[in-house]
Amino acid sequence: MGIQEKIFKDYQSFELQQRYLKDPQTLYEPINYVLALGGKKVRPVLTCLAHEAGGGTSSNILKMAYALELFHNFTLLHDDVMDHAEQRRGKPTVHKKWDVATAILSGDEMLIQTCILINEVEQESGHAFMSEFLTMASEVCQGQQSDMDFENRDNVTLDEYMEMIRKKTAILLAVAIKFGSRLAGIDGDTQEVLYDYGTSAGVGFQMMDDYLDTYGDSSFGKRIGGDILEDKKTWLYIKAMELANAGQKAVLANWHGTSTNEEAKIDAVRSIYTDLGVDKLIAKEMEKQFEHADQLMLSMKNQMPNIGVLSDYLNRLAKRTI
Amino acid sequence: MGIQEKIFKDYQSFELQQRYLKDPQTLYEPINYVLALGGKKVRPVLTCLAHEAGGGTSSNILKMAYALELFHNFTLLHDDVMDHAEQRRGKPTVHKKWDVATAILSGDEMLIQTCILINEVEQESGHAFMSEFLTMASEVCQGQQSDMDFENRDNVTLDEYMEMIRKKTAILLAVAIKFGSRLAGIDGDTQEVLYDYGTSAGVGFQMMDDYLDTYGDSSFGKRIGGDILEDKKTWLYIKAMELANAGQKAVLANWHGTSTNEEAKIDAVRSIYTDLGVDKLIAKEMEKQFEHADQLMLSMKNQMPNIGVLSDYLNRLAKRTI
Repeated sequence: MGIQEKIFKDYQSFELQQRYLKDPQTLYEPINYVLALGGKKVRPVLTCLAHEAGGGTSSNILKMAYALELFHNFTLLHDDVMDHAEQRRGKPTVHKKWDVATAILSGDEMLIQTCILINEVEQESGHAFMSEFLTMASEVCQGQQSDMDFENRDNVTLDEYMEMIRKKTAILLAVAIKFGSRLAGIDGDTQEVLYDYGTSAGVGFQMMDDYLDTYGDSSFGKRIGGDILEDKKTWLYIKAMELANAGQKAVLANWHGTSTNEEAKIDAVRSIYTDLGVDKLIAKEMEKQFEHADQLMLSMKNQMPNIGVLSDYLNRLAKRTI
Repeated sequence: MGIQEKIFKDYQSFELQQRYLKDPQTLYEPINYVLALGGKKVRPVLTCLAHEAGGGTSSNILKMAYALELFHNFTLLHDDVMDHAEQRRGKPTVHKKWDVATAILSGDEMLIQTCILINEVEQESGHAFMSEFLTMASEVCQGQQSDMDFENRDNVTLDEYMEMIRKKTAILLAVAIKFGSRLAGIDGDTQEVLYDYGTSAGVGFQMMDDYLDTYGDSSFGKRIGGDILEDKKTWLYIKAMELANAGQKAVLANWHGTSTNEEAKIDAVRSIYTDLGVDKLIAKEMEKQFEHADQLMLSMKNQMPNIGVLSDYLNRLAKRTI
């Protein structure tokens, strides 16, 4: 069993032991439900791998990993209410299975429980975490708000979009890596490089998600074209609007807001994207992010000789082999 | 100007300076809106009065007071979404003025900002606050969940009800007093007594709220009978169901869930309450809570000679002269 697999299994069994058996069950059952939906557990695995890469031996590492996974699931839970999402990982979302009130309150409790765990690790390990965690959490809220605001705006720039995905998605990955390395006793400067490394990789992953939502292989079971159907202001859309001529803009505008002929809409919008070459442009931009991450990784080889266990995992994520 | 008035004014001007001017405005505007709705600012005033009663000179006192008011407003914001409330202090609730997504996310950010402030005070003052604050916050969620659960249950006991209002309402008042005294350097044992003092007073206030909702004077402008119309499982209702004979139970059951003749429903249910004497029983129980609080207050006279500034305020709250 490889180190990545071992870490995933160790984390999984730790998480299972954390099931909330407290009262009122109506508050805690949805929390257990959300965590049990599965997924790749990318954030806690990153925390553990960064710790491993730094040669760490902290007894708090799994607790920290779990805290960040709990936070991530809190954001999913509340985002699903805000987006009226009906399913999450093939199962009904909490506000569908229970109701909106339950989803809001259980989410609140998840955020509070996250803070309890972060505070415990801070007290027990002697490393400061709380302040940075809360700054990150606040920025995640800002990212989510910007994402919602973009839906009602026609003038979103690529810079704004990149800043939104940095906050909404990338910095939690960056913090997961940074905190894991901190528990391993890695020096502060290297922690900052790791944070930038995680941010670049995270931005790259989100762009890849956007790319695959439109250009992915539907044989993996994922519905293709969701972003186009929902008229989401993705990198592809913003770039296309930048490059489109009057005729192409008119076609895009005509499809905007329609939902009667879904397949035709996806085909038409994607054709314009492809004609404008935004598929290649996003691939290039994505590559830039991953190359920047690679450079940062190489710069840390002296401080973290074992960084390969972390970068291998991120590379596999980038190639979607995990 | 009396000390209570001075503290209220000092707090008010501190709060005004805290207005969030950050981006995205769509996230922070609702927070400013909620705080500006006014109110008696009972929690921050209690924090400051407990600090004053302990002869405190902490430069962090207003920040702590503000943090607890922010937390309180976070709970109001999310509770209003859960309860589908349309108004708060005569103004539209956040989910009515904006939308549900905004109310959820701004509330989340308020909770995060609360934790940031509590953490800052902990770091700056050298006193531990975070862990106790988070335990209290989690219990408030439990209280809110129980309150919602009670609506779907027919077998709620008075003990369960008392535990629910302790968690949902009283312990935040208790923590407000305790934290204010801690910043004044009051010893740990006395802090615990102050916590019990605040809890008893808080439970008393909530029972008074329940009493006045049914038996209050409508000339103050507050709608009377709301709890009856909403079939809320209040102390009055639970006690009445305990004492009612078969005929009275049948009448209560008949009105339950109806909304066609509001005034008749209020009159009929209140008549049964009065016939059973539950109005007098709740007054007696309330008095017990306030007497217990008074005894605790007297027991602290040696440790806190100036406790009168705090107890005067609580007594005035109990008599509704504030």
